[in-house]
Amino acid sequence: MFVTSWQHIAGADDLHLNLILRAEKLIEPYIAQTPVLNCPVLDREAGARLWFKCESLQKTGAFKFRGACHALLQLTPEQRAAGVFTVSSGNHGAALAHAGQLLGVRVRVAVPHNAPEVKKENIAHFGAEMTEIEPGMAAREAQIARWEAEGSQLYIPPYDHPLIIAGQGTAALELIKAHPALDGLISPLGGGGLLSGTAMVGHSQGIPVWGVEPELAADGKASITANAIQPAMPPISMCDGLLTNLGQHTFPIIRDYVRDILLVSEDEVKYAMHRIWQRLKITAEPSAAVVLAAVLKHRAYFEGQSLGLILSGGNVNLSRLPWQED
Amino acid sequence: MFVTSWQHIAGADDLHLNLILRAEKLIEPYIAQTPVLNCPVLDREAGARLWFKCESLQKTGAFKFRGACHALLQLTPEQRAAGVFTVSSGNHGAALAHAGQLLGVRVRVAVPHNAPEVKKENIAHFGAEMTEIEPGMAAREAQIARWEAEGSQLYIPPYDHPLIIAGQGTAALELIKAHPALDGLISPLGGGGLLSGTAMVGHSQGIPVWGVEPELAADGKASITANAIQPAMPPISMCDGLLTNLGQHTFPIIRDYVRDILLVSEDEVKYAMHRIWQRLKITAEPSAAVVLAAVLKHRAYFEGQSLGLILSGGNVNLSRLPWQED
Repeated sequence: MFVTSWQHIAGADDLHLNLILRAEKLIEPYIAQTPVLNCPVLDREAGARLWFKCESLQKTGAFKFRGACHALLQLTPEQRAAGVFTVSSGNHGAALAHAGQLLGVRVRVAVPHNAPEVKKENIAHFGAEMTEIEPGMAAREAQIARWEAEGSQLYIPPYDHPLIIAGQGTAALELIKAHPALDGLISPLGGGGLLSGTAMVGHSQGIPVWGVEPELAADGKASITANAIQPAMPPISMCDGLLTNLGQHTFPIIRDYVRDILLVSEDEVKYAMHRIWQRLKITAEPSAAVVLAAVLKHRAYFEGQSLGLILSGGNVNLSRLPWQED
Repeated sequence: MFVTSWQHIAGADDLHLNLILRAEKLIEPYIAQTPVLNCPVLDREAGARLWFKCESLQKTGAFKFRGACHALLQLTPEQRAAGVFTVSSGNHGAALAHAGQLLGVRVRVAVPHNAPEVKKENIAHFGAEMTEIEPGMAAREAQIARWEAEGSQLYIPPYDHPLIIAGQGTAALELIKAHPALDGLISPLGGGGLLSGTAMVGHSQGIPVWGVEPELAADGKASITANAIQPAMPPISMCDGLLTNLGQHTFPIIRDYVRDILLVSEDEVKYAMHRIWQRLKITAEPSAAVVLAAVLKHRAYFEGQSLGLILSGGNVNLSRLPWQED
């Protein structure tokens, strides 16, 4: 395993920010500088100033490309030569595939067969070898064990690793560099890679950070309440990127540095996603739209603030959109 | 009328570029610096390098905001105090409404009642007074005559005016500043404001320019062939922003400076629009998607080139998308 010495990371603030600052420099030649969009109509609706960091416009359509690039850039020459693998509901797999393609590293990806077509298309387009597996954590873990038993290829986890977390944190870093006077940062919560990185950046600058997850996938909130990682809930939320549980690395960071986890309903996500498409003109996926849903739900709480929202990705099956359901 | 001395503009190249350079400086504090996106998957599909200037991410969701701002910034104090009006299928109306709001100018807009809801919503949101009229050129001209007869308010045309054309040209100017080594510029053709401005910029830099219009609204191509402005065709193309005929100012510029007008079918537009949404993650409207449709249709012709494509706008009715029709 490409484990760094940076194992337990809560409680060493400078180290956190330094790792993210270093990640930013390393990945800069490879990533897209994503724009920060603002929309006066949405500002009025929210009663707050909203700065959307559009990671849906990142390469492969999601922030995941940052962490994947960072991880591959830290491999030893031997590890690079042997190649890597991962298991991913889509965005991390596509990100790793494209990073591997750019950096000359062979990539294998196992994907749940029910992942959106556009996410599978991404993985294939970027030249990775794709294997379809059953949805759910059990199948995921069995596949990892199978490939690890097979031999020399390194497993690149989708979120629960310091190098992945540091890579994802660069999105928030870019956002606060562009808009230093933010009153808060808001990020979706799935496995916690993006939220952990965001929380480390926010904490280092004294900016409070909120996570958002669907009511139907609220294991993160439950984990904080119980002070122990809770299992993922059945995968029924439309937010297909937020269905995983927290990990050993992400849990303590989120527990210590995130002010609160906000929950949103499926209808609230659907409405917020429609508003983003209609007003910001970008195809944010449901897992990304949760951040606007939370701000609109908690209007009184956030009123008058200047908020940075991480729009995590834009990979959506366009043949039928959530608001078109009967 | 706020007519400048710049009445007939073909044949004075330096003046053209100077007016656009001046427009760029004037409107810079008010417009959004729209990103230029590239997508390796679309590049591969087109066999060319494609740089999309995303005016769908411009304020009010379309390039029209550039020309509207520029026109209002050139009003005399008396004209500003009296207010302005226009007739628009939507994007120009919304642009003028928002520009008026920012610059403190009262704006009235007449809109065909069949314009997409999102375009009407834009106009209302930005505080303009909206009047619904019948679709088509006759109703449009009758409304202009009515309001001109009424009194003191100035008519701001949607495209056929040097100040509007110069404003629209700033999109191409920004694009070639970001990517100076382009082999060509491609822009949609409706009334010709955007294409004229693009052509003036391209011509000044020795970069060839192509216009694109739907086969079902090919009056521009017919006008060039006949060397006289032809009337608009019946409004049946899904490209609702490209249904107007050329004007006295736009026609000679396009005739003299545009290499060719390319035609695309409704199915080609539908496919290109879907690809843009899926791969670039932005909600380009059909009138914008024509540029990609043309590049894909003429793959052999453009092969290996580096092309700048103006994605003109992103205002779409999201309840039913073109590729979802039976």
